[in-house]
Amino acid sequence: MVDRSHIVKSYEQELGQLRSMVSQMGGIVENQVALALSAISEQNEEAASSTTQQDASVDALERNVESLAIRLLALRSPMASDLREIVATLKITGDLERIGDYASSIARRSLRIRTASGQLTLTGLRSMGRLVQDNLRRSIDAITQQDSSRAMEVWHSDRAVDEYYTALFRELVTYMMEDPRNIRPCTELLFIAKNLERIGDHATNIAERVFYAVTGENLPSVRPRGGIATTENSADKNEQ
Amino acid sequence: MVDRSHIVKSYEQELGQLRSMVSQMGGIVENQVALALSAISEQNEEAASSTTQQDASVDALERNVESLAIRLLALRSPMASDLREIVATLKITGDLERIGDYASSIARRSLRIRTASGQLTLTGLRSMGRLVQDNLRRSIDAITQQDSSRAMEVWHSDRAVDEYYTALFRELVTYMMEDPRNIRPCTELLFIAKNLERIGDHATNIAERVFYAVTGENLPSVRPRGGIATTENSADKNEQ
Repeated sequence: MVDRSHIVKSYEQELGQLRSMVSQMGGIVENQVALALSAISEQNEEAASSTTQQDASVDALERNVESLAIRLLALRSPMASDLREIVATLKITGDLERIGDYASSIARRSLRIRTASGQLTLTGLRSMGRLVQDNLRRSIDAITQQDSSRAMEVWHSDRAVDEYYTALFRELVTYMMEDPRNIRPCTELLFIAKNLERIGDHATNIAERVFYAVTGENLPSVRPRGGIATTENSADKNEQ
Repeated sequence: MVDRSHIVKSYEQELGQLRSMVSQMGGIVENQVALALSAISEQNEEAASSTTQQDASVDALERNVESLAIRLLALRSPMASDLREIVATLKITGDLERIGDYASSIARRSLRIRTASGQLTLTGLRSMGRLVQDNLRRSIDAITQQDSSRAMEVWHSDRAVDEYYTALFRELVTYMMEDPRNIRPCTELLFIAKNLERIGDHATNIAERVFYAVTGENLPSVRPRGGIATTENSADKNEQ
């Protein structure tokens, strides 16, 4: 009988390496979101440029994860839950890469919101930002610990993110109506709010994928949704 | 020697089935974009609701592609370019699913833009829409024909999409400044323009993935970019 312990060990090592690369990617992206939020709160140009500078590392990690996944698939013939995990990883890195892009977009836009009305709005944005950060952190923990119950928590709290977005949308439109000088900064804030909502949505995607990889079951295709029924809210179901 | 012709044939059949499912998904998504654009041009509620109704089929196809890909990976141990193609397919269906979501978002928003100024803007949006449709069609052709030169065409014309977006953004902000009654519909149009730009971006992602699957080489990480250097344009590099 052939001694396969060496092969088994290095398969586990490679799978461990894949997980650690995804965690690392998650860590960078979490940091980008934190920096982008402080770029808004403090009008901090340095935080804004640190955010965007990390895009390249995220992109490189996404490519490296893909190469390692292809290598594992080609040489190790993983089965059952390992195979599901590797496939989920390929999708998850796509979500993480998008989150990093949204964070960079927020960082760039943060430098263009300098008005008194803009200041008023920041309270709502900050609260929304904290919630989205919590959800992102939990979804990354769910990946690292392959924890379906954490994934389920994220899935349930996406509703609250939507509620914040709906409230902010209304508030911003009101500011724009009040004073045309608010229009330009408020369009930036509208896109920032939308970007935050999208980050929350990608965190939920990640949660759904972890849930599937761990349990082999899909979460319901319809997510719990927040906000009272307004045109804006209903327009934003499952969207951009 | 074992006769493997039966196995080989059904592997090819399964790979063919995977390709045909992706083409089918591409076809539905193309149709969603076309319907969403006619929902804008003609304020056509029926087109708008047809667009959103197709989300469920797209989601189901994405899941089915993933299941078949997992099956192929588990049972067929595909190598080299087949393996790259299957991995690319998993990423591409994610892009197609997002495009379908953006089309649905456009369709829903299209029903909320009823103003004279809105009408003025539609010319620019229509042209942008046609260009994005062309790019999407070419990227889907690139998938179906595994054609790297088509992929390269899409990659090069993303620049023009960005230029349209930048021009529309300025135009819409001007309308909002002119008359507060334009603010609400113009925010919808801003998001529609952004959604179109994002559809173009996902078409480019698809092109990049096809190029990699076919050639084993990556396109340069920096895309050709359009628009003159304005804050809005520079803010929109690689973003949501």
